[in-house]
Amino acid sequence: MRCCLINPNSTESMTAEMVAAARAAASEGTVVEGVTAEHAPPTIEGYRADVLAATEVVDIVSERTADYDSFVIACFGDPGLHAAREVADAPVVGIAEASFQLALSLGRRFSILTNTEADIGEMEDLVLRYGLGERSAGVRAAGLGVAEADDDRGSAATAYLAAGRAAIEQDHAVVILVGCGPLLGLRQHLETELGAPVIEAVPAAVVVAEGLVRLGLRTSKVGAFRRRDGVAAA
Amino acid sequence: MRCCLINPNSTESMTAEMVAAARAAASEGTVVEGVTAEHAPPTIEGYRADVLAATEVVDIVSERTADYDSFVIACFGDPGLHAAREVADAPVVGIAEASFQLALSLGRRFSILTNTEADIGEMEDLVLRYGLGERSAGVRAAGLGVAEADDDRGSAATAYLAAGRAAIEQDHAVVILVGCGPLLGLRQHLETELGAPVIEAVPAAVVVAEGLVRLGLRTSKVGAFRRRDGVAAA
Amino acid sequence: MRCCLINPNSTESMTAEMVAAARAAASEGTVVEGVTAEHAPPTIEGYRADVLAATEVVDIVSERTADYDSFVIACFGDPGLHAAREVADAPVVGIAEASFQLALSLGRRFSILTNTEADIGEMEDLVLRYGLGERSAGVRAAGLGVAEADDDRGSAATAYLAAGRAAIEQDHAVVILVGCGPLLGLRQHLETELGAPVIEAVPAAVVVAEGLVRLGLRTSKVGAFRRRDGVAAA
Amino acid sequence: MRCCLINPNSTESMTAEMVAAARAAASEGTVVEGVTAEHAPPTIEGYRADVLAATEVVDIVSERTADYDSFVIACFGDPGLHAAREVADAPVVGIAEASFQLALSLGRRFSILTNTEADIGEMEDLVLRYGLGERSAGVRAAGLGVAEADDDRGSAATAYLAAGRAAIEQDHAVVILVGCGPLLGLRQHLETELGAPVIEAVPAAVVVAEGLVRLGLRTSKVGAFRRRDGVAAA
Amino acid sequence: MRCCLINPNSTESMTAEMVAAARAAASEGTVVEGVTAEHAPPTIEGYRADVLAATEVVDIVSERTADYDSFVIACFGDPGLHAAREVADAPVVGIAEASFQLALSLGRRFSILTNTEADIGEMEDLVLRYGLGERSAGVRAAGLGVAEADDDRGSAATAYLAAGRAAIEQDHAVVILVGCGPLLGLRQHLETELGAPVIEAVPAAVVVAEGLVRLGLRTSKVGAFRRRDGVAAA
Amino acid sequence: MRCCLINPNSTESMTAEMVAAARAAASEGTVVEGVTAEHAPPTIEGYRADVLAATEVVDIVSERTADYDSFVIACFGDPGLHAAREVADAPVVGIAEASFQLALSLGRRFSILTNTEADIGEMEDLVLRYGLGERSAGVRAAGLGVAEADDDRGSAATAYLAAGRAAIEQDHAVVILVGCGPLLGLRQHLETELGAPVIEAVPAAVVVAEGLVRLGLRTSKVGAFRRRDGVAAA
Repeated sequence: MRCCLINPNSTESMTAEMVAAARAAASEGTVVEGVTAEHAPPTIEGYRADVLAATEVVDIVSERTADYDSFVIACFGDPGLHAAREVADAPVVGIAEASFQLALSLGRRFSILTNTEADIGEMEDLVLRYGLGERSAGVRAAGLGVAEADDDRGSAATAYLAAGRAAIEQDHAVVILVGCGPLLGLRQHLETELGAPVIEAVPAAVVVAEGLVRLGLRTSKVGAFRRRDGVAAA
Repeated sequence: MRCCLINPNSTESMTAEMVAAARAAASEGTVVEGVTAEHAPPTIEGYRADVLAATEVVDIVSERTADYDSFVIACFGDPGLHAAREVADAPVVGIAEASFQLALSLGRRFSILTNTEADIGEMEDLVLRYGLGERSAGVRAAGLGVAEADDDRGSAATAYLAAGRAAIEQDHAVVILVGCGPLLGLRQHLETELGAPVIEAVPAAVVVAEGLVRLGLRTSKVGAFRRRDGVAAA
Repeated sequence: MRCCLINPNSTESMTAEMVAAARAAASEGTVVEGVTAEHAPPTIEGYRADVLAATEVVDIVSERTADYDSFVIACFGDPGLHAAREVADAPVVGIAEASFQLALSLGRRFSILTNTEADIGEMEDLVLRYGLGERSAGVRAAGLGVAEADDDRGSAATAYLAAGRAAIEQDHAVVILVGCGPLLGLRQHLETELGAPVIEAVPAAVVVAEGLVRLGLRTSKVGAFRRRDGVAAA
Repeated sequence: MRCCLINPNSTESMTAEMVAAARAAASEGTVVEGVTAEHAPPTIEGYRADVLAATEVVDIVSERTADYDSFVIACFGDPGLHAAREVADAPVVGIAEASFQLALSLGRRFSILTNTEADIGEMEDLVLRYGLGERSAGVRAAGLGVAEADDDRGSAATAYLAAGRAAIEQDHAVVILVGCGPLLGLRQHLETELGAPVIEAVPAAVVVAEGLVRLGLRTSKVGAFRRRDGVAAA
Repeated sequence: MRCCLINPNSTESMTAEMVAAARAAASEGTVVEGVTAEHAPPTIEGYRADVLAATEVVDIVSERTADYDSFVIACFGDPGLHAAREVADAPVVGIAEASFQLALSLGRRFSILTNTEADIGEMEDLVLRYGLGERSAGVRAAGLGVAEADDDRGSAATAYLAAGRAAIEQDHAVVILVGCGPLLGLRQHLETELGAPVIEAVPAAVVVAEGLVRLGLRTSKVGAFRRRDGVAAA
Repeated sequence: MRCCLINPNSTESMTAEMVAAARAAASEGTVVEGVTAEHAPPTIEGYRADVLAATEVVDIVSERTADYDSFVIACFGDPGLHAAREVADAPVVGIAEASFQLALSLGRRFSILTNTEADIGEMEDLVLRYGLGERSAGVRAAGLGVAEADDDRGSAATAYLAAGRAAIEQDHAVVILVGCGPLLGLRQHLETELGAPVIEAVPAAVVVAEGLVRLGLRTSKVGAFRRRDGVAAA
């Protein structure tokens, strides 16, 4: 299975890190190749960055539809997910959506941990848009920027642990989702400390993509994701 | 009040037509100026076109924040609405959202009429994303492409009338929403024939924008729409 | 545009104050005339008062259908709103519903501030009944009676500010709604202190009414709001 | 147990008929007394009639709080239910709400049969307002006015049977609710023909009222139904 | 009316206690007989115990369909409720569902008090499964095991009172539900202290069962609860 | 990865068939072993059979917790899923839930195809209980019993195809789920004819189980699925 992992931001180092995480999660025989959205912002924070990233993502997928068996959009807001599904025949997996999907197997309600308070609204939006409000226990912010989280993993771990504890004790979450690239590697620590399953988004997306490909499942083209070739030509 | 009406597609004639409709709806003292999204597809059909349009919209708004008191995104999928709210201080109004807002005053459930079956999923998505499912009676397609609708208004009227009747009789809709540019001018005809209020999206957006400006209301910056200046610089 | 503002309680001074607020918000050419519900309680608190007010409201509207282009029901519980829509051809706007409508343009979730804890249930009812639960962040009480709020605006401002802060910080509200007559004039103060848009209900209703009238939109008569003339005669 | 059955319309013959139905359903030791809302319309159709009826209902309850152990509001729209709960200490039961309550024991989804299409919106409103949308399979109209239904029970039976069949076969309802006074007596016929439980509203309310009284349960006064004595005095 | 009260756990003393409570709530002429699920666990905590109890319950009901006019499943998780409805013609009432049903008459939102934190998820599940989320204010745990609660009613009362206060003050519950057998007898105390109606589950179920029987209502067999005789034979 | 596939009915041939399907879907290195619920009914139709199956399932899982890395419950009603999660440390996957999970990646709304009308209610229950109503387009019955479907695959194919077409054309489903064992092998045919993705439940469960195991994810024990050892001992 050939999987194209798209980093929707322009930070190459993050692409490398996410590709490594994806490969670690992939089964034998899966090839993961990373593509960086060169013209996108260095981090995707806010709706504008999300739109800029989405444009890149849809182009990247559109140009590579013949080359891969699946695509993973590796940013927790799933920028361009629906548009990418429209242009591709192969399955396209968003790392947030994949996290939600796997969480359903593990317990009644999941909570998303984000870096900053400012991201809470977008995450709530995502859950609402996916129709999964009944399974969400809300969103908790660790109080860090993406860059900070990246720079100092010790502080990030502490802040995320506190956010996870609040999610479990105050919001009755039983599954914890961590979206952000820099968190890669903290899963084990958080899981041990919290005593609850912690889903890392990139690995989750890889196994969902592999599963879909193994079963020969592709995005439905009878509904909203049908190809719009006239438009594509425009 | 200076209002910037953005046509998210690249068809200039549609911009002119929508600006005319907006001006007809505006109160005295409101100046409506149109901007066409030059690099966007000629019509916005499907999620990819929506993303391309969104990128244009957010740039158009971002460059003109100092020049207008409000912005109207004049495409029924509201492309780039949230991103535009992030970059602007002035209110940004989507013509679909504005139609939903006014419909709430007129009856219990509204139905959206679209050109084609292919658009139903996206419209349902929009309603879900806005959290308005309880007030929607569904989406009905007239069975026309945007271009066709534009070319032959007689057929469009007949097809939309049939879709509206189905919405009222089978889905118990009591308010009808017509989104698409080409429908401009058919409102009176549909309303008379259907005996139910018919909301045209562009005029709806103009009066919502005027109302917000008159009250000094602006997009909330305490939540997800706060400015992300570091990102904007990227 | 001739707009009839109905104060559903019997306190004349409140009518005058609300008419003044409505006129300040209205565009040129709009005439606002106030009517007081003479036989209603002096303040509308609780479901019984709401029913008494509703009876007055529907009579007031019924007698004046030929005289006005729109009606505004100026009490945050929207007493008699649906009944008034049944008897009128012109649009009827409730100040609570109008606040909800405009809030949708400004951010993901709104919170209502009420005078007392006792009003929370009714406000939650209103949101549920309008099908807008997904957009509400709840209701917060300032801990004042209507009369108190009226007597001492300094204390009211302080109490409402605290309630607004709790709504934003604890409930993640991003738009604040203040319903009550006595709050007129505090909007600017609250908005500055909270850093979030604050919608005053009476002005919100005026601009919604103006917008509907400008577009020629009237209450739908194909559904539940159709006239029941036999009943009206009874 | 002394139960006051309030007919919210002014048709005395309907009061008598409903009292008889209530007594037939009541257990030994229950005294049912009827009160007619003298100043209300002869039938309650539409929101205005509902408001007029509500005013009467709340007065009737208010004057008799010392005389009865429970109150039943005997009109399927439950006019004045919340207001009556505010003024009474004894339990107040609406015949629509009681029907919904009992239906929950009998199957997954219930459908309401109404006389006319015009009533569908109000019934949907009622279900939404009570937060029971997940358990409703919708509303079906028999296509009769209340008066007609009363005049010709044979036709009413046929029309209601057809509506019930549509509810079961097309909407997957498994429990059928009939609200209207004139239907009294048709339950057995409908139930046999439809093969599904049919709940008559007045008897349902009587057994709910008896149950609440037997358990010593009264309306909660810690929330929205607390007494508002200052207002009551107004 | 002959009512079979099934204790889904194997603790005989609890059966006796619940039968006594049921008889105290029953009207004259109602015969309540208790059956203990001999092979079930001594208390029902968790999903596995629920399944074991359900098997017993469905057998008990199946063997006694000719002997009783109604069945009550006397464990707050309603184990085997749907299966019992499938095998019986007489109505089957779950004590949790009956509590929810009666609560709807008393106020807008109810809270369930449970013994331990561990039960919160199951209770939330129950509310979701019954489609009653809009009427629930959540679940609060008293922090006791069933056995403890049984052993020391003084402590149980104190712990439940604190949980009830939190439900009312923090979650805006206005009706309190207590499910567990050992709580029998504490209702009056809790109600007085909390100032809100407190529903005991066993008595609630008895009056719902009596009401259904008096009206001749039985479980719907047109939908999911139809008899599956081939399977029953298996 | 060692996966235990539990057939919750007692029909050995169905176990063999489902194990074969599971193995065909599994990746290299996955060992699938089948266990038949010997004391369960030969087919699981209705709630009683579901309870009987659940008891078997929980015992089978409980006895084998040390022997497998994951468990799959191979009946579309997911009997005993929550109880099995309570007794196991390894992940437990239900084939219905897994189908829903994968469907989320492929389009906005899925429809379940069942053998008979009688199963519709249970399937709707399942979707409601999992909180996935927003993503479901309903349930369509092919009009066959399990045994019939098994006996005559040609007729089953025709009947399922018609049900799938109705789901797509009338209910706007874009993804089709087929639950029942006998359908194994028809996926390709249905998918080609319908032009929409068709998810077979057993293969879906296998890939979800593999994904969870690969990521080291296990059922959350901080909430409702925690072990209840005292009870297990009972």
